[in-house]
Amino acid sequence: MKRSERLVDMTSYLMARPHTLIALPFFAERYDVAKSSISEDLAIVKHTLAKHKNGILETVAGASGGVRYIPFVGRKIANNVLVNLSKKIDDSHRILPGGFVYLSDILGNPQTLRQIGELIATSFAFEEIDAVMTVETKGIPLAAAVSEFLNVPFVIVRRKAKITEGSTISVNYVASSSKRIEKMELAKRSLQPNSRVLIVDDFMKGGGTLTGMTELVKEFDCEVAGMAVLCETRSTEQKVIKDYLSLIDIEEVNVEQKMIKVHPGNFLMKTDWEVF
Amino acid sequence: MKRSERLVDMTSYLMARPHTLIALPFFAERYDVAKSSISEDLAIVKHTLAKHKNGILETVAGASGGVRYIPFVGRKIANNVLVNLSKKIDDSHRILPGGFVYLSDILGNPQTLRQIGELIATSFAFEEIDAVMTVETKGIPLAAAVSEFLNVPFVIVRRKAKITEGSTISVNYVASSSKRIEKMELAKRSLQPNSRVLIVDDFMKGGGTLTGMTELVKEFDCEVAGMAVLCETRSTEQKVIKDYLSLIDIEEVNVEQKMIKVHPGNFLMKTDWEVF
Repeated sequence: MKRSERLVDMTSYLMARPHTLIALPFFAERYDVAKSSISEDLAIVKHTLAKHKNGILETVAGASGGVRYIPFVGRKIANNVLVNLSKKIDDSHRILPGGFVYLSDILGNPQTLRQIGELIATSFAFEEIDAVMTVETKGIPLAAAVSEFLNVPFVIVRRKAKITEGSTISVNYVASSSKRIEKMELAKRSLQPNSRVLIVDDFMKGGGTLTGMTELVKEFDCEVAGMAVLCETRSTEQKVIKDYLSLIDIEEVNVEQKMIKVHPGNFLMKTDWEVF
Repeated sequence: MKRSERLVDMTSYLMARPHTLIALPFFAERYDVAKSSISEDLAIVKHTLAKHKNGILETVAGASGGVRYIPFVGRKIANNVLVNLSKKIDDSHRILPGGFVYLSDILGNPQTLRQIGELIATSFAFEEIDAVMTVETKGIPLAAAVSEFLNVPFVIVRRKAKITEGSTISVNYVASSSKRIEKMELAKRSLQPNSRVLIVDDFMKGGGTLTGMTELVKEFDCEVAGMAVLCETRSTEQKVIKDYLSLIDIEEVNVEQKMIKVHPGNFLMKTDWEVF
């Protein structure tokens, strides 16, 4: 097979398997060429991704070595995504009774989801993450997108577990909005002990839901590796969660004046850009 | 930029934007080369995808023409995915009280989800689809995966809509399992009239939930373009839904004997393979 064809297939193969170590002999056998040719091919892929700030091809040396494609977008691309997303959310038609913000179209748009997933995966690209966790319902597409780019499983916490979950472990937590005690639960077999868990959600007000998930992570003898939300809102109450990543910051929602103020969140500041 | 680099970037660009028409001048400008070179590049991409039965690059002629990457896997690849998936589900540890089957790990595995999404998108690759619809909770990762490969938005029907959905339209339907009247609802602003909707779900027994979603599609003055489920189960009752795509067929679940029988569903038979 010619180099040109190998490059197309290799790129497509790697992109479909992020964060996965692929041994050089695998490619050498797939294309029936010498390992030295594969090394040259991979150098071209690496260089091209780096040039477009569109991912990292990490080379792992040694007998058990190979290459690993790491989704990672550059700061400028990330900034563009965040500015466009802010503009999209900064729309008075999204204001719902009670000062809530309609986001379902954004969480149902595959191109937007892909961008969001890639951004969050960029920020945690070099952290050790074993699983992504979210709570139903609107966090699910977000968790699926992040899970895809980090290539680790995601688990869905339920407000009220269905019979199809089997045995569960549950926790109680104080909902930030209602101040009421709520319950959330997760299938017992869904998380291995000692997993490092990245918690994601669509919306954070006081942080009650995230706190509930943190408790649940502990109940499974696991560890919180990080927290990321699509939107944070400023509320008069103190946030119970201190260290989190936010893509969007909803500064104000005024129902009477039909006014909403939206900016990018702390994402650019919280992400390490010294990689490229 | 050299051809080798162009091929890497082009492949990655196209794969991130399935079912999207990209004009040739866009690439010519991106790489600062003649349109004739771009045509040669694209011929290599097209040929390589076809050779590996790993997607179709459709060329659209004319002034407003360009190329479109269509995710489409070959019959043999699809068969492998289905056989492996059957084996994974054919595990007595998955049997839950009441004869239910634990699937959450499969719906939370990004590589499996990607394969499932690509398969369903293959089957509907040349249908006109404007949106994917599912009902919470476990159908959501599935809908997200299909939506990604078809590159159309997905909408989530709720059992009980939250305030964050705004105004909704609801329908009542008869649940196959309980024979009780249930309710499901969808945000009014989530579907445009006259959309062609692909309904997906994780599990079909009698088909009550799918019937409910069909009713909802009609209430939005839309049309059902197709229905696809991850698993169908054989039940004594007549299925109310006749025309559907199933990836997996759960023939029997015997709780006492801890026995489960699983095969590939009707997918291979229902998909048109004459494309390659």
